Amino acid sequence: MTRKLRMGMVGGGAGSFIGDVHRKASSIDGMIDLVCGAFSSGAKKSVASGKALNLDESRCYGSFEEMIKKEKALPEDVRMDFVSIVTPNHMHFPPAKMALENGFNVVCDKPVTLTLDEAVELESVIKKSGKLFALTHNYTGNSMIKQAQAMVAKGELGKIRKIQAQYLQGWLSTSLEKTGQKQAAWRVDPKRSGIGGALGDIGTHAENLIEYVTGLKIDEIAADLGCFGEGRILDDDGNMLIRMENGAKGSISISQIALGEENNLAIRVYGEKGSLEWHQENPNELITRWLDEPKKIYTPNGIGLHDKALEVSRIPAGHPEGYLEAFATIYKNFSIHLSAINNGEIIDKPDYPGIEDGVRGMKFIYAAVDSDKNNSAWTKI
Amino acid sequence: MTRKLRMGMVGGGAGSFIGDVHRKASSIDGMIDLVCGAFSSGAKKSVASGKALNLDESRCYGSFEEMIKKEKALPEDVRMDFVSIVTPNHMHFPPAKMALENGFNVVCDKPVTLTLDEAVELESVIKKSGKLFALTHNYTGNSMIKQAQAMVAKGELGKIRKIQAQYLQGWLSTSLEKTGQKQAAWRVDPKRSGIGGALGDIGTHAENLIEYVTGLKIDEIAADLGCFGEGRILDDDGNMLIRMENGAKGSISISQIALGEENNLAIRVYGEKGSLEWHQENPNELITRWLDEPKKIYTPNGIGLHDKALEVSRIPAGHPEGYLEAFATIYKNFSIHLSAINNGEIIDKPDYPGIEDGVRGMKFIYAAVDSDKNNSAWTKI
Amino acid sequence: MTRKLRMGMVGGGAGSFIGDVHRKASSIDGMIDLVCGAFSSGAKKSVASGKALNLDESRCYGSFEEMIKKEKALPEDVRMDFVSIVTPNHMHFPPAKMALENGFNVVCDKPVTLTLDEAVELESVIKKSGKLFALTHNYTGNSMIKQAQAMVAKGELGKIRKIQAQYLQGWLSTSLEKTGQKQAAWRVDPKRSGIGGALGDIGTHAENLIEYVTGLKIDEIAADLGCFGEGRILDDDGNMLIRMENGAKGSISISQIALGEENNLAIRVYGEKGSLEWHQENPNELITRWLDEPKKIYTPNGIGLHDKALEVSRIPAGHPEGYLEAFATIYKNFSIHLSAINNGEIIDKPDYPGIEDGVRGMKFIYAAVDSDKNNSAWTKI
Amino acid sequence: MTRKLRMGMVGGGAGSFIGDVHRKASSIDGMIDLVCGAFSSGAKKSVASGKALNLDESRCYGSFEEMIKKEKALPEDVRMDFVSIVTPNHMHFPPAKMALENGFNVVCDKPVTLTLDEAVELESVIKKSGKLFALTHNYTGNSMIKQAQAMVAKGELGKIRKIQAQYLQGWLSTSLEKTGQKQAAWRVDPKRSGIGGALGDIGTHAENLIEYVTGLKIDEIAADLGCFGEGRILDDDGNMLIRMENGAKGSISISQIALGEENNLAIRVYGEKGSLEWHQENPNELITRWLDEPKKIYTPNGIGLHDKALEVSRIPAGHPEGYLEAFATIYKNFSIHLSAINNGEIIDKPDYPGIEDGVRGMKFIYAAVDSDKNNSAWTKI
Repeated sequence: MTRKLRMGMVGGGAGSFIGDVHRKASSIDGMIDLVCGAFSSGAKKSVASGKALNLDESRCYGSFEEMIKKEKALPEDVRMDFVSIVTPNHMHFPPAKMALENGFNVVCDKPVTLTLDEAVELESVIKKSGKLFALTHNYTGNSMIKQAQAMVAKGELGKIRKIQAQYLQGWLSTSLEKTGQKQAAWRVDPKRSGIGGALGDIGTHAENLIEYVTGLKIDEIAADLGCFGEGRILDDDGNMLIRMENGAKGSISISQIALGEENNLAIRVYGEKGSLEWHQENPNELITRWLDEPKKIYTPNGIGLHDKALEVSRIPAGHPEGYLEAFATIYKNFSIHLSAINNGEIIDKPDYPGIEDGVRGMKFIYAAVDSDKNNSAWTKI
Repeated sequence: MTRKLRMGMVGGGAGSFIGDVHRKASSIDGMIDLVCGAFSSGAKKSVASGKALNLDESRCYGSFEEMIKKEKALPEDVRMDFVSIVTPNHMHFPPAKMALENGFNVVCDKPVTLTLDEAVELESVIKKSGKLFALTHNYTGNSMIKQAQAMVAKGELGKIRKIQAQYLQGWLSTSLEKTGQKQAAWRVDPKRSGIGGALGDIGTHAENLIEYVTGLKIDEIAADLGCFGEGRILDDDGNMLIRMENGAKGSISISQIALGEENNLAIRVYGEKGSLEWHQENPNELITRWLDEPKKIYTPNGIGLHDKALEVSRIPAGHPEGYLEAFATIYKNFSIHLSAINNGEIIDKPDYPGIEDGVRGMKFIYAAVDSDKNNSAWTKI
Repeated sequence: MTRKLRMGMVGGGAGSFIGDVHRKASSIDGMIDLVCGAFSSGAKKSVASGKALNLDESRCYGSFEEMIKKEKALPEDVRMDFVSIVTPNHMHFPPAKMALENGFNVVCDKPVTLTLDEAVELESVIKKSGKLFALTHNYTGNSMIKQAQAMVAKGELGKIRKIQAQYLQGWLSTSLEKTGQKQAAWRVDPKRSGIGGALGDIGTHAENLIEYVTGLKIDEIAADLGCFGEGRILDDDGNMLIRMENGAKGSISISQIALGEENNLAIRVYGEKGSLEWHQENPNELITRWLDEPKKIYTPNGIGLHDKALEVSRIPAGHPEGYLEAFATIYKNFSIHLSAINNGEIIDKPDYPGIEDGVRGMKFIYAAVDSDKNNSAWTKI
Repeated sequence: MTRKLRMGMVGGGAGSFIGDVHRKASSIDGMIDLVCGAFSSGAKKSVASGKALNLDESRCYGSFEEMIKKEKALPEDVRMDFVSIVTPNHMHFPPAKMALENGFNVVCDKPVTLTLDEAVELESVIKKSGKLFALTHNYTGNSMIKQAQAMVAKGELGKIRKIQAQYLQGWLSTSLEKTGQKQAAWRVDPKRSGIGGALGDIGTHAENLIEYVTGLKIDEIAADLGCFGEGRILDDDGNMLIRMENGAKGSISISQIALGEENNLAIRVYGEKGSLEWHQENPNELITRWLDEPKKIYTPNGIGLHDKALEVSRIPAGHPEGYLEAFATIYKNFSIHLSAINNGEIIDKPDYPGIEDGVRGMKFIYAAVDSDKNNSAWTKI
């Protein structure tokens, strides 16, 4: 029997958006129990958050260091199996490194670290530790993205020629960070966000989606970043040209000042034999186009899907799957992997993003910022 | 501190669709733990199902009678708080009645019972028991349906004149029940489904959605049921005219032989001042029309929503909510209610469907079948 | 060489909506010249309208009687070839009859006449005259409707089981007729509209679309008409059940008080092998569903169309065709027919609606009104 | 009385796509008669084409030179009022120049000329001639584009920050030009197309739409052109970054190898107060987003439009307008202008594109090609 995995959380205290998302996403499939957390800095706040989550006070810690140390001291069948890191970017690397070095597996929000150097270092820490590491590029958990990935991988679209991705939000159209809104505040702050603003927050999702779906690396990038919000230091908008390793060309448009846009992530991929199009805000459709057939629309658990897409659906066709379900798929595939290892089984790594995606994301941010500083000169990723 | 509620499940063994939905929906918000179940008839199968769910073997029962009896004997802080009934229709009433009479609260799938008589009897059992009863008319848990309901209730649409609802599926277009598919088999069997086929399975959702959104009762109905599948006894299709208590008119179209339709539940409501339209397959939009303004589209957690709609969203605007989230809202509101009672707090009944909705649903089925037998004569509900 | 046909118009003076539509639709394909008209009752107004259309004053007549008489007296190579009748319903029959009896072909707006008796009489007048008669059920001129018709006719959908049609408008939500608006005024007046209000104006379009696309006759109907506008005598809303000659069932919903709806004509047809769906407000898509394939979307001049659909497109795929183009197709096919006859060629009657569609429409109106009077009893068409 | 204007056509013989579009578009509003043409090079083919159009053989000319000369010799009330030029790009300048210098007004397809030098010269020819010149950037004739333009001009969107435009087609995905398809053949031939392939054919539409809707000039461009079709010399794909004169940033993506795309022209404009989005393939919607209101959808002749948008609609809301109607609006506004001048009236230039748009388009092509040659360096337009 496969037991439920025990999760400890770093971050995600009261008022956090993404912490709650991680908790809900990790609970849907009944494979994971939240057993402890360092939800906030300071024991008092952390305990308050933890108790609201029905945790035992003794396992609500005042810091990730304390959590890792004390959990390690617990009996093996009690202590957490893995750490979920849901803090702002600057607080990804320290807990991830310490957890891994103390024998804990890690799930981490993106972008993987504050700096590229940290990401590279983390890669070697992971390798040395022999532990699992998952990065929550959640959109790759969507059924229709799995279908898209499989279609390209099987050559159904032929050689890829053109790619368009966009990730448009409007929530920073006004100076929200000046109103005390916490989500906005850390995202516009280089100390907590890193050198990329929108680039790190949403640009890496667009980049990751492109590379995941097409199986191709972005070779170089020409970026024109925007910084429209009054007094901002980091980019809140960006237009980028991309060239793929196989000769395909394309563009990425990102924005957090695209007024009125909610969470408009979309991708279009054009090949020599077929094309596909997906919109995150209506994720239950994959639009495909063909040389000799009319447009075909795939749906989750619908007709004609590849196994990879079918595997991630939890409900019948026509019952919409949303953001949380896709997010949950990252946790599910990570859990399957970890449980297999716990059970001494040998399986292929299931399909979830890892440190290599994290390093790519950091390189993307650095290349885009470099290009922008050089008046949009083409820059290798 | 509000502790997690303990759920026991009746039905939902291996191969069940809706049992898994209930488990996932009840787990999303971290308010409920599954602690026991009578998942299948027969101890062996039930234990197998329960163990796969990480339950203790001692709490995997061979029948609902055993579960209720044994759980009652457990200490108060261990035994289940409520029973979730996810069996075919004919197995709703017996466990619901026994659970209530033994002091357990109940969550039950729809239609509430096999017969109208049972539904009426259950209503008085509930009243006598003083326990809570929730019926999982899950679509009322959607954020946009909450918004629709609030808009009508506040008079924003004016007096309602016209209503259209449809619930179209195609999965019984072929004789799926002859292939051994369990979901199909019991739905076409009057002994397990009752006198309504599609009527009970999906028609009651359409009826409930109409009455929930408009706050109006359907007064009478003229139904023309179809039975297209070879050898079928129960309806697999229906076209109905409706007249509402306030003079509004409308129609309901349901089908399980609408080839290619997945789960196309939709509602349109037209008033003297405004109108609204919602499609379950794209649930994150509420389309509204007005006398003096262009069409406006509301979105979950988006701009201009009533509190009732905002309350049910778990994630920011643009992050799609799906079927499971709406389903979870029924469990969440039920849990809030039950926890408040457990904590000795007095609160209004939160917004979730109950026995009154169940009785209305059964009356709807009976009126439709009667009308159909009388060549579509108008029949009171 | 095929010369341009000469058209005379009855009705369509200043302020007319549909007259202008007929003129634009008849001019798109360069096959027809407007040469004369009795645009309004009274010579003065008619001349004013005609001159604004660049007509010679001598051919702007004060009545249709005068027009028919005087045009007949003109040399054969000058006088009009056919009459286009664009008046309110009560003024369809008299000019149509007189024109035909004087050797002129006729294009007439729908519903074909004020009463069923007139329609039946007109049928025999046409037969006796040997002249052509076209009824402008314009929506059948859409490329995607041609495709739908062809797909059903070729058996691609298998036996038809279920049909839904709706025609929803909101422009009579308020008492527009009391404001002096001419379009509203005649439509709510039984003397000019006949016994049907919305039934005649838009219901006949829905009925015609059903019978055209499916190739099946509606056998009987159960209608519940609404009359919501204050002081109105005629229906401004209707919900109807239908049974087709082949055993298929369905419904029709029409309204002119569906607030905010513009011109929402739509049809869904479900067969044993496939299904289709079309929405007039987005006419450049035909949505099809299949047992073993994902949803496929056809587009005008796009991939996979039948000849019948290809024939009516004037521009490449992706260049949207609208209301006027579909309307023009009626004129085009009528013109092809008439020119062939003029040239002494023998061709099959091209695909445009005629008197048989007109008689069906009138029977539909009468059956619906009868059924409604009998509390929605099933009534044969 | 305003008489109908007389049009002579250069190009548009049998097999031409755009010639037929111009003829249909110019005939819809009943303001223009085609009276003569030099449809093909060579009298015989031209006469054949003209006769099929019901033209008098005497006015079907073998060359544009002959047409201009002979028409000029006709009586003033017989000869053509203006020339419509619908040839491939290399044949725009010669007939336009000669027509203007001989006193004829001109309507010309885009891009305006083969080279930028020609465009600049044409500008001075027009000025000297005192004649009217219209360029058929047809998409600016759409009702929803007029509404978009008016909303931006009135400041409703606030200062513009971000712009995305795309024009995606897939018809050159394969080597269509090698199959003898005429439309493809001249478009990939620099001698007939100029230095831009897709750039001239569709890129100029995107550029023109941006500048028309926003009222802002594109200041500089960084272009990465693609040339994917085997053996092609000219671009068949392009990704471009743009910077507007007001500091706004954006991107343009064009392609004729975006397999499966039909005619996917779209624009998004984001301001400080509001945003808008329009898709040519569903032209009857203008999607707008706002800081404090839900998404609003405008429709042609619908609620809340500016006069400029209302003016171009020919039919009531909900009756879709398509490609030809928008195209016809260019001819209509040109005709209104020309008729006013003919009648000695003084009016503002109605809203239709002219030589200044043509010159901008050529500069755009040249700047994009230059930038591409310089590895996407920013290049002034």
